[in-house]
Formats: sequence, C-alpha cells, structure tokens
Amino acid sequence: MAPTLPSRPRAILIDLAGVLHVGDQPVPDSLEALRRLRASGLPLRFLTNTTRSPRSAIVALLQGMGFDIGEDEIQTAVHATRQYVESRWSRPHYLAHPDIAAEIGHSFSNPDVVVLGDAGPYFTFERINEAFRLLVGGLPLVAMARNRYFKEHDGLTIDMGAYVAALEYAAGVQATVVGKPAAPFFLGALSELGVAPAEAVLIGDDLRDDIGGAQSAGVAGILVRTGKFRPEDENDPDIHPALVVDDFASAVERILEN
Amino acid sequence: MAPTLPSRPRAILIDLAGVLHVGDQPVPDSLEALRRLRASGLPLRFLTNTTRSPRSAIVALLQGMGFDIGEDEIQTAVHATRQYVESRWSRPHYLAHPDIAAEIGHSFSNPDVVVLGDAGPYFTFERINEAFRLLVGGLPLVAMARNRYFKEHDGLTIDMGAYVAALEYAAGVQATVVGKPAAPFFLGALSELGVAPAEAVLIGDDLRDDIGGAQSAGVAGILVRTGKFRPEDENDPDIHPALVVDDFASAVERILEN
Repeated sequence: MAPTLPSRPRAILIDLAGVLHVGDQPVPDSLEALRRLRASGLPLRFLTNTTRSPRSAIVALLQGMGFDIGEDEIQTAVHATRQYVESRWSRPHYLAHPDIAAEIGHSFSNPDVVVLGDAGPYFTFERINEAFRLLVGGLPLVAMARNRYFKEHDGLTIDMGAYVAALEYAAGVQATVVGKPAAPFFLGALSELGVAPAEAVLIGDDLRDDIGGAQSAGVAGILVRTGKFRPEDENDPDIHPALVVDDFASAVERILEN
Repeated sequence: MAPTLPSRPRAILIDLAGVLHVGDQPVPDSLEALRRLRASGLPLRFLTNTTRSPRSAIVALLQGMGFDIGEDEIQTAVHATRQYVESRWSRPHYLAHPDIAAEIGHSFSNPDVVVLGDAGPYFTFERINEAFRLLVGGLPLVAMARNRYFKEHDGLTIDMGAYVAALEYAAGVQATVVGKPAAPFFLGALSELGVAPAEAVLIGDDLRDDIGGAQSAGVAGILVRTGKFRPEDENDPDIHPALVVDDFASAVERILEN
C-alpha cells in the first residue's frame, strides 16, 4: 500500500530540479510558495541526486535564482552516502571526484568499506584496480548512485553506474546504492530532523526516483506536473502518488490547508 | 549431442598453456609428441586466449622451450577478433592495448563497429566515454574476451570483462565475445585451414573454455589431465569430452592410431 498524506506533517522533503527550478529559472510561483511554506515553520530538506557538486555549489545556484536555502538543508547523494557509511563503518576507501573530497572526508589506508562516487576522469585503471582488489579481499561496496549516463554540452556522457557494474562483475559483488531512489537517501534526511517517514511528505517531479523511492521508504509523495513529469505518470501501474498537483505552489497550498 | 572423434581428422587444434607447457616448462613428452604429430602432416593450429600479447611474443616463449611453432599457426583472441571483425565490418573503432596495435590494424574515424581488447591502463575515462558514445549512437560491440580478472605478480588484477560489463550497462547493449569459449575463436582458426568443424579435433586442459567451447562449435574435444584439469571434470553434468587422456603425448598417440 502506498503511504497516505499525513494530516499534520512534521517535515517536507522537496526535490530541487524540476520542482523549484528548471535549469537556472525558478518554476513560476515557486519563490513565493517557498516563502509561505517557510512561514509555517515546518522543517524542510531539499533533495538532489548529484554525486559531483558540493552543497556549496548547489546553494550558490539556488541563491542566484532568489531561493533562500542553506547548505545544511540540502540532501545530496554525496551527503546521504556519508551519513550511511559513517553509521555502519569507520574506515571508508573512497573512489570519488576531487570536487567532493571535502564533503566526504578522506580515505583510510586499512579500509573496511569501498565507496564509489562519480569520479569521472578520475576513474583511472589504477584507481579502479585498487578498488577491485579491496572488493575481492572481502570489503563491501557502497555506491552513491548507479545512473547509466547524463547529458553534457557536447553529448551523452557515461555515468558512474557503468563503473559500479564493472566492479560488481569483476569482483562478483553487489553494490548497495544510497542515492535516489534508494531508501537511505530519504531516511538520512529525515533522521537529521528526527522525523519518522509516516510524518513526512515529499514533493517531486520524477515518478520513479522521487515518488517511488520515497514511498518505498514510507514517505507519502506529491507528484507535480512540472520538470520530468509526463502525462502517463498519472496512470502508472506500479507507482501511485499520494497526490498529483500542477506545481510546487499547488503542493504547498494543499499541505498548508490541513 | 557432443561431437565424436572423426576417424580421419583433417586438422588438430591445440591449446597451449596447460597442454604443451605449464609456465615456462614443457609438459613431459610434449616436445617429442609434437614432432611425431608434425611428421603425420596434419595441419595444426595452436590456441591462446591472450588479448594483450602479440603472436611474436608467444612464439618467442614457445621457441625458448624448444617448440617449433610459427606465428601463422597461432590463434589468439586478438587474431580471432580481427578475422571476425573483418568478415562483417569495414571500419572498426578499436579500444585496445598499444602492444597489439600492429596485429589489429588502425581505428577508423567514421566507424561501423566498436571492438574492445584488454587495454589495461589505457582504459581511460576519455577512451571509455568515446566508445560509449559510439555505442549509444547505434554501433555494435565486439569484445575479445570477458574475463573477470587475472593473476599478476602483485595480486589479482581486473580484466577486460569489467569494461565490457560497464559499456553494456551504460549503453544498454550486449557484446559479442570472440575469444574462447566463443565459437568464432575456433571457427576462425579452422576457416584459415579450410577444414569443417566435424573434421577437426581439439586438445585442451580447460573443460569449459576449451572442450565446451570447441564442442559448441562442432569440434570434438580431447581433455588432457594436465594444466587446469581437475578430477571432477570427468564427471561434469554438462560437458562431456569426446575423450579424456593423461596428457598431450597420449592424445597424439590416440589421434595417430586411427
């Protein structure tokens, strides 16, 4: 059963791209709607699945569009991975992009877990082989995401999921993925707020990664008809949002009505 | 049904490592047995699944042990791949190790197929992304092998199968593998000799990659109890060699008896 909207939510999770903004433009009415939501006093967390940008860069982009959002309010796949790893292991070996080094902390020489981010050009043979040897030595594999590719200015670019697949195949292991739509991504954000999944609401534009992921973690999802939304999402056989509304402003209105 | 031994074979395929030699030592009696087989006038092909060494390096190793074997008689995964690719496409894009560049020929700027070898340290992000873009653009993927790892002096090392898995996952394609145990490996060697699979015999020590592969291609296999052979290979539920003998010398004796 899909979770139903709590009558008095205690926290709101808000996907960023496609909900608050598209590219570098705010979605119409979203700036004003966020101000109204803030005025209610509800704790907020803003979600993005990036595995390359530090939170400071995301905040700079949002503030440039006029959104008043602080670094501590942002849940990224990078931050969720750090939360997940620190709660279970003590000496991670990271293979990730240098841009996020400050967010994840350093690697240990006698590691107890291998953690993969999107290292991009830093996925050298030597680094991959180093991770492989740790995995065949018995360490578990945690991955920030397993996306296949993304779009860059000069065309599609291979994403970190390919390297997750490579290491899984060679070492005969199965990675635990932390980014959306995996449960740890949503649960990590809520645990910082001390709020249970059934007391929270998510607002997202991606039926599978936002709504499906959140609802699998027990968080009711409101789907907005902006960003990645496609009309057929309203009749999906598997994923049934708790509510579908036109945009972020409508979602805020429904939440504050209660 | 597994193929049966032809009464008068017209060609013999002989796996190298584990059959003629182990490491840099000839298997006992194999030098003399090869001389006797040569004297029969039967055409021979020697098989190795290497995707990094050129045939000249393999011949140098064999001649150092006293085996009189020429480059033209050796079937490698590299050579089999070139045969396979040239028979189907005209403008390959190669991602492979520079050591085998002379054996495979050069890459074309407007390619019609992507061909993967074991590039090792030359598997850079840029080269992998270049191959990925060609694959999402619709080109087929051919791989010399899909081994998971191999042993080096300082430990296990990730093998090219990991990169095959990475590209398959990211581009949503399925590679055609040419090296052992794939049929093109055996059929390529036989087609150079103009001999049909049912007229040939293979001698190998690896139940799955030698015997299973050859027999799937229609070539009867003789398993020797040297090299990778394990006693349980004689009772495998799936792969039934046409004959099992102690070593290469015994295999030659049985072939020349007929």
